[in-house]
Amino acid sequence: MKLLRVGTAGSERPALLDAEGVLRDLSGLIGDIDGALLADTTGALARVREAERAGDLPEVDTVGLRYGAPLAGVGKVVCIGLNYHDHAAETGAPAPPEPIIFFKAADTVVGPDDTVLVPRGSTRTDWEVELAVVIGKTARYLDTSEDGLAHVAGYAVANDVSEREFQIERGGTWDKGKNCETFNPLGPWLVTADEVPDPQALALRLWVNGELRQNGTTADQIFPVGEVVRYVSQFMTLYPGDIINTGTPAGVAMGQPEPKPYLRAGDVVELEVEGLGRQRQEFKDA
Amino acid sequence: MKLLRVGTAGSERPALLDAEGVLRDLSGLIGDIDGALLADTTGALARVREAERAGDLPEVDTVGLRYGAPLAGVGKVVCIGLNYHDHAAETGAPAPPEPIIFFKAADTVVGPDDTVLVPRGSTRTDWEVELAVVIGKTARYLDTSEDGLAHVAGYAVANDVSEREFQIERGGTWDKGKNCETFNPLGPWLVTADEVPDPQALALRLWVNGELRQNGTTADQIFPVGEVVRYVSQFMTLYPGDIINTGTPAGVAMGQPEPKPYLRAGDVVELEVEGLGRQRQEFKDA
Repeated sequence: MKLLRVGTAGSERPALLDAEGVLRDLSGLIGDIDGALLADTTGALARVREAERAGDLPEVDTVGLRYGAPLAGVGKVVCIGLNYHDHAAETGAPAPPEPIIFFKAADTVVGPDDTVLVPRGSTRTDWEVELAVVIGKTARYLDTSEDGLAHVAGYAVANDVSEREFQIERGGTWDKGKNCETFNPLGPWLVTADEVPDPQALALRLWVNGELRQNGTTADQIFPVGEVVRYVSQFMTLYPGDIINTGTPAGVAMGQPEPKPYLRAGDVVELEVEGLGRQRQEFKDA
Repeated sequence: MKLLRVGTAGSERPALLDAEGVLRDLSGLIGDIDGALLADTTGALARVREAERAGDLPEVDTVGLRYGAPLAGVGKVVCIGLNYHDHAAETGAPAPPEPIIFFKAADTVVGPDDTVLVPRGSTRTDWEVELAVVIGKTARYLDTSEDGLAHVAGYAVANDVSEREFQIERGGTWDKGKNCETFNPLGPWLVTADEVPDPQALALRLWVNGELRQNGTTADQIFPVGEVVRYVSQFMTLYPGDIINTGTPAGVAMGQPEPKPYLRAGDVVELEVEGLGRQRQEFKDA
């Protein structure tokens, strides 16, 4: 299923995109799309599946409709750094021997087409198209990558927007350049795991002002999704509604020759992950 | 006021400790102690103050009572590293020129006397008594330290439990050793800012198995509370219900001579910050 949340920011209602591409209202059936729904696979989530099959969900009027992030009540957002061979190479870093972990706060999550703000004082705001993984079952000290995959409820597109000076040169850990407001567009859809048979075979692409900048594939991930979930679960407990941003392929601004094309107010970033939909953000000054 | 939350984990109810040291039930007056309450200074929070003054709040039966974390719906937990001159010195690091920022997830927050789990595979679980700051107003690009202080709703004791190998030697940012489950005991009280006239004059102490290990003062902070809030607000927006752990003074296990006394199952850690109450945790294996 393709789950999503539509409406004005803070007042989104749950919906799904059916097999015919029609947007269907779920607000008569469930409260919201959140960790509790994703964990309730045989209850509320099964009722949503059944309603989609029955075909009797009301259609959503799409005129002027805003898409919110497809997940409410986001827990933590765990991010994996340098998880693509080609991206590690462009930054001049060796492939890490184990996953690099940093965090984004849930309050950085915005809708897929919402405005993104270039922070005050920023000269190096950068893009990162990523495969985001949404956790559906509590994951704690998992033993295998297969078990890791079994704890994934679904997938979404994320833009892990980053300020490179804040991230690298301001004496903090990477978190300092990853948590500016609006820095985590998510969606449009949360695609349930059953519709993504192989998360290691997805194309990722990102354009800036129409120019293709990232053109990668999750096949190039150093640590695949199941292994990432297993690994993270050794250091922290993952809960339904937590997200893992699994890293970005080559093509970020930081990896370009000088003058590097960092983002400015007025720039438009579009990005997509195969089967998971497409985002479009206009950048403005904070 | 000294606000707190009492009862079994996940079912805490709001309470306050009155001037006579009697625990009073607030559940007839407010839903919970959270960011929305702290932001509503002239509404719900004023009603709590008035009820305390009127002296007609029901007493709480304290027999066998558990204290939860004094804040529900914790947003993000921003942590400041190496923020005491004496602690920076014991780790061999120079005083940082600007605050070091890392994150703990809200799901690591537990009650002040709850069991803390030594992670599997851990050999270097460490303690850190800290002054935790609770944000009461949205803080974004603040101009001055005074303005920083004006956005603080209150203060609490925190133990920023840390696994040093995970933090420093596992190739991630510090977050990897800071987010194990139960790693952020908080409380017992959330003391409103009006009762803490000078947050830079508070003694902090921590004992392990009865032996005094940390004995510092917030006067030794490199970046005082108001400056920390101002600084953090340049990189991310702080919201009511967010927490900042403002760093730890000298005396952590990592700073001791070999063999360093890292924590093991069976150890008991007690800690206090002047005027903010006292915690006691028994450590067990995860």
